[in-house]
Amino acid sequence: MGRVVFIGAGPGAADLITVRGLARLRDADVVLADALIDPSLRAEAAPGARWIDVGKRGFSADSTGQARINTLLVDSARSARLVARLKGGDPSLFGRLEEELQALAEAGIAAEVVPGISAALAAAAITQCPLTRRGIGRSVAFSTAMTQAGALEARRSADTEVFYMAGRQLDALGTKLAEVGWPADTPALVVSRAGWPDEHISQHTVGTLADANEGHAGRPTLVTVGVGARAVQALDAPPSDTLAGQD
Amino acid sequence: MGRVVFIGAGPGAADLITVRGLARLRDADVVLADALIDPSLRAEAAPGARWIDVGKRGFSADSTGQARINTLLVDSARSARLVARLKGGDPSLFGRLEEELQALAEAGIAAEVVPGISAALAAAAITQCPLTRRGIGRSVAFSTAMTQAGALEARRSADTEVFYMAGRQLDALGTKLAEVGWPADTPALVVSRAGWPDEHISQHTVGTLADANEGHAGRPTLVTVGVGARAVQALDAPPSDTLAGQD
Repeated sequence: MGRVVFIGAGPGAADLITVRGLARLRDADVVLADALIDPSLRAEAAPGARWIDVGKRGFSADSTGQARINTLLVDSARSARLVARLKGGDPSLFGRLEEELQALAEAGIAAEVVPGISAALAAAAITQCPLTRRGIGRSVAFSTAMTQAGALEARRSADTEVFYMAGRQLDALGTKLAEVGWPADTPALVVSRAGWPDEHISQHTVGTLADANEGHAGRPTLVTVGVGARAVQALDAPPSDTLAGQD
Repeated sequence: MGRVVFIGAGPGAADLITVRGLARLRDADVVLADALIDPSLRAEAAPGARWIDVGKRGFSADSTGQARINTLLVDSARSARLVARLKGGDPSLFGRLEEELQALAEAGIAAEVVPGISAALAAAAITQCPLTRRGIGRSVAFSTAMTQAGALEARRSADTEVFYMAGRQLDALGTKLAEVGWPADTPALVVSRAGWPDEHISQHTVGTLADANEGHAGRPTLVTVGVGARAVQALDAPPSDTLAGQD
């Protein structure tokens, strides 16, 4: 009976994986990889390792697909020494990790989780727009723009709100953001395919978010709204978009 | 004139730095390091590199300390080729990154940001308690429990709330959490010194959070409340602690 290590591969570029994650990947004899993984990571697997692509993550994977992955994971661990389960971003954020952990627990298979760089952290680094700002932004929330039922939902409960998987309805998201109280001039930063060669970044406001459709629509897209979407050079501007000037 | 690379060193263990972050660290000729950095990373700096410890981050650094760091950063970049600014966790989350970026921008010095594993992601990985859960937890918020003015604040606006720098008033935080509407039986997971050899993990509820003082008080501590604090094996329990069963 082998064990399973979940590895957050980070978004895009292969060198955003952690040193620990890379070491475990090199040590594995079976690798189950999500679709949004840099193909160059494949060269890091051990020469004799079996590499299995198991499809997309997040909103693209249906329940049948997930059940198939769970079965494959358990079966692989039974016949291998170390199975690496490579996930894009961080396994603990929008990664369906709990479903796979539960399947392993039920089968009595030991698991380890190595964290990864989630897309929001990568996008903040790339754009040099920190998610928190002293004095004006002490809270940040991550959520998916779409519910599993396919409804679009917006939020305004943190100084910075980051919406994952927002690339399908950017125009409708702008409308929803206004409905939940974000002023039309609130900065909205849109990053798709963060960390990849075809990464695309554009700066909008809540009122002009529909313009982001061109260049982002249909791609893995993050939308950051509020304090964390403002360029650092603009820090001295009045924080009209903050929830509160708490401190 | 050199340039500055901000590197998220991750929390605790040195091997939670990214491959890119480690490569930049090895390439730097000056390193300005926060206090909460694994000392073994020091051995990764180039043989001739200058290593400068610049004190703690977050709530421990006062404005005078930050101004001194900004000056040191600018001065170092003027006389070096590559300055690595090592920060614990991720620079974009509670890292005062915007203040240092702004100082560099004003001095006309180029900057790069390499993201890191934030403590919340590491704690979720270590405890195998994912921050999001399909169907019951689609939003997660990170905030500091203390305002800069020293007031304690709690929130209940996401399915999972993670409070950074909560180690000073765990008993009072429990009271505040109840005040903002969290039921007393809501799971509360407490992790201090995530990733370090003296890491400490304990499981409580909102009603019994005061018990966490023993073992965590005064240490760098994260408190996770809500769906993301539940052990995966408990997934089938009724989600009485969720904000909404949205999907």
